[in-house]
Amino acid sequence: MSAIEVDYRFPTGVDAHKQAQVIALGQTVGTWNADFDHRQAAFAQHMGQVLSVATHEGGDHTATVQFPVANVEGDIASLLTMIFGKYSMAGAAKVTAVRLPQSYGLRPHLGIAGIRERLGVYERPLVMAIFKPALGLCAADHAALLQQVATAGLDVIKDDEILGDLATAPTLERLRACRPVLETIQQQTGRTVLYAVNVTGRADQLLERARVLVREGANALLLNVLTYGFSVLAALASDPDIDVPIFAHPALAGALCGAPDHGLAYSVVLGTLMAHGGADAVLYPAHYGSLPFAAAEEARIREELRSRHLFPVPSAGIHPGMVPRVLADYGNEVILNAGTGIMDHPDGPGAGVCAFFEALERAIPGQALIANQLPDGPLKRAIAKWGV
Amino acid sequence: MSAIEVDYRFPTGVDAHKQAQVIALGQTVGTWNADFDHRQAAFAQHMGQVLSVATHEGGDHTATVQFPVANVEGDIASLLTMIFGKYSMAGAAKVTAVRLPQSYGLRPHLGIAGIRERLGVYERPLVMAIFKPALGLCAADHAALLQQVATAGLDVIKDDEILGDLATAPTLERLRACRPVLETIQQQTGRTVLYAVNVTGRADQLLERARVLVREGANALLLNVLTYGFSVLAALASDPDIDVPIFAHPALAGALCGAPDHGLAYSVVLGTLMAHGGADAVLYPAHYGSLPFAAAEEARIREELRSRHLFPVPSAGIHPGMVPRVLADYGNEVILNAGTGIMDHPDGPGAGVCAFFEALERAIPGQALIANQLPDGPLKRAIAKWGV
Repeated sequence: MSAIEVDYRFPTGVDAHKQAQVIALGQTVGTWNADFDHRQAAFAQHMGQVLSVATHEGGDHTATVQFPVANVEGDIASLLTMIFGKYSMAGAAKVTAVRLPQSYGLRPHLGIAGIRERLGVYERPLVMAIFKPALGLCAADHAALLQQVATAGLDVIKDDEILGDLATAPTLERLRACRPVLETIQQQTGRTVLYAVNVTGRADQLLERARVLVREGANALLLNVLTYGFSVLAALASDPDIDVPIFAHPALAGALCGAPDHGLAYSVVLGTLMAHGGADAVLYPAHYGSLPFAAAEEARIREELRSRHLFPVPSAGIHPGMVPRVLADYGNEVILNAGTGIMDHPDGPGAGVCAFFEALERAIPGQALIANQLPDGPLKRAIAKWGV
Repeated sequence: MSAIEVDYRFPTGVDAHKQAQVIALGQTVGTWNADFDHRQAAFAQHMGQVLSVATHEGGDHTATVQFPVANVEGDIASLLTMIFGKYSMAGAAKVTAVRLPQSYGLRPHLGIAGIRERLGVYERPLVMAIFKPALGLCAADHAALLQQVATAGLDVIKDDEILGDLATAPTLERLRACRPVLETIQQQTGRTVLYAVNVTGRADQLLERARVLVREGANALLLNVLTYGFSVLAALASDPDIDVPIFAHPALAGALCGAPDHGLAYSVVLGTLMAHGGADAVLYPAHYGSLPFAAAEEARIREELRSRHLFPVPSAGIHPGMVPRVLADYGNEVILNAGTGIMDHPDGPGAGVCAFFEALERAIPGQALIANQLPDGPLKRAIAKWGV
């Protein structure tokens, strides 16, 4: 496929044929008068084309519009401006799918294979934790938490997405406090633990800060792609000095994707656009987690990410007792991200990590764990608190 | 006001009191266990607080939550992550207002007064055009169009927002072709015409490209803030080498703002956030233009922008016959932005500009122009095509 195809869903009552034409023309060349008739050949190269309009049972419609790649710059920002820039303000319409040429945008620098290689872990889902509480800890608190979870075998930890470069715990201080913990684990066990440091700030300062963090030993970065911008993700991903995985956080995704008849589908924003945008791993709500999320939409995100070898990171509300369901639903190529599901374990964060690993060892995919068949220990205690 | 206040509107059926508490805690500190009880004083400094929950006639609610400024970095990206990052995915809720301390964020570098000073025009609305057709013209075509509208007295012209750095008309070539036209007008008439060049690309390249464009004579920039990122706007606005006004385009705003019960209000995104984000002038749909837009929402945007001395730029579907209504609704401190309303004038783009100026001279605010009372000329011809 050498062109860009976009599916727009219109609710009942909208003239989808007309709107599709408005998009195909209005989001590309626009109108012209007789003065420009001699440029018609040039316009033809840029014009969008309505490929189809389908009517669904409920009376809503999906129109597919094709756009020339020549209209955009091979990145996500110009793509969004073209496919849904001005038109997003034209009334009810939702972008439900975007199909891009394979060569469009960026591929992950590391992705699934690269992250596994850094960790030396190949055969199981990775386990990821989040520093909690999100705000109010000092750098030494972070280091103490990290000590507990890293010792227990954790693969990845990340800052909470709302923890930026704050006076109470500056980003570089957090990294400097945590790095010795990571180094000690490495020396004592040979294991690598990734710490995805939240990189924030004005675009120019963010890019410079990322370089400083990596120079100071950060082995992963976290970016709130939707609040900072896809153009910032692309810059980070293209920087040869940033030789670490970039974890994309979905903060603000609900504002773009949560409405039934407006915005873009979650699978477009957190799947397709991230997969062509330069991220290595993408967080999104797990459908059985604490946020309302459809399993089918989650599956589409997962497929989009895996099709370009990014790590899917289902998040929010995951706890150890869920692991058999998680394995059945997701398979191995996934990072299980738990916030409170690790940090609030009754016996502490280290036990939270152990509970996940115990669950990964014992679980038969799709077969619920039975608490009274388990030995006393972290998993049984986790299930007593959170269930299965 | 030294804290941040945010209004969230919840539809009927949502437990607004509960959700407001979820936001106040979940979007700040989060939960903690007994291990961290000794940090309670620190947590208190970061915790959000529910100020009020009001119930409206229809049964929907508005909750006001206060957030400490200490939680964020004084910019729009970290603000969005905090007030609506993860929570945006939690179900139906719309951010309807954000009240920020005066010192929060950036002020426009030039704003209304600075733009007027560059142009030497103080007593009337400014008139702005858009290069059309949007795609398919070469740099020489742009220069030829500019010649027509600039000679006719235009104040500002901008690239179409979907025209990036394309092979058919590279950004720098467009500027280089247009600059001699601007210089000639300046020499012959003393008048300045601003050309807002669309600056695009990966964040690092965009920032560098902006500097190159300004060095090469660009006297204004256009940025698709929502597709490129508020962090990019902040970087441009803070760059001492970018001593030109930044025009913010609303592309993608409908995806964030168009839904009734999700996302953020237009007046928040295109008003408050732009006004604290570093823009000098902000485009948004005029309520009587071609996009569906509420007059009250437009008024809020205008007020938010003017309160920090940014130029409001109502756009889309404005034509010369509307000028009396426009003057009554908006007053003088506004830039009237017309695409087809200038470029598709039956006697050409120059006549389109003349028609606007004729309308500004003849118009009595709020009193419709009457075609058969007008002399033959550009305005009469415009009204014959588009009405009043």
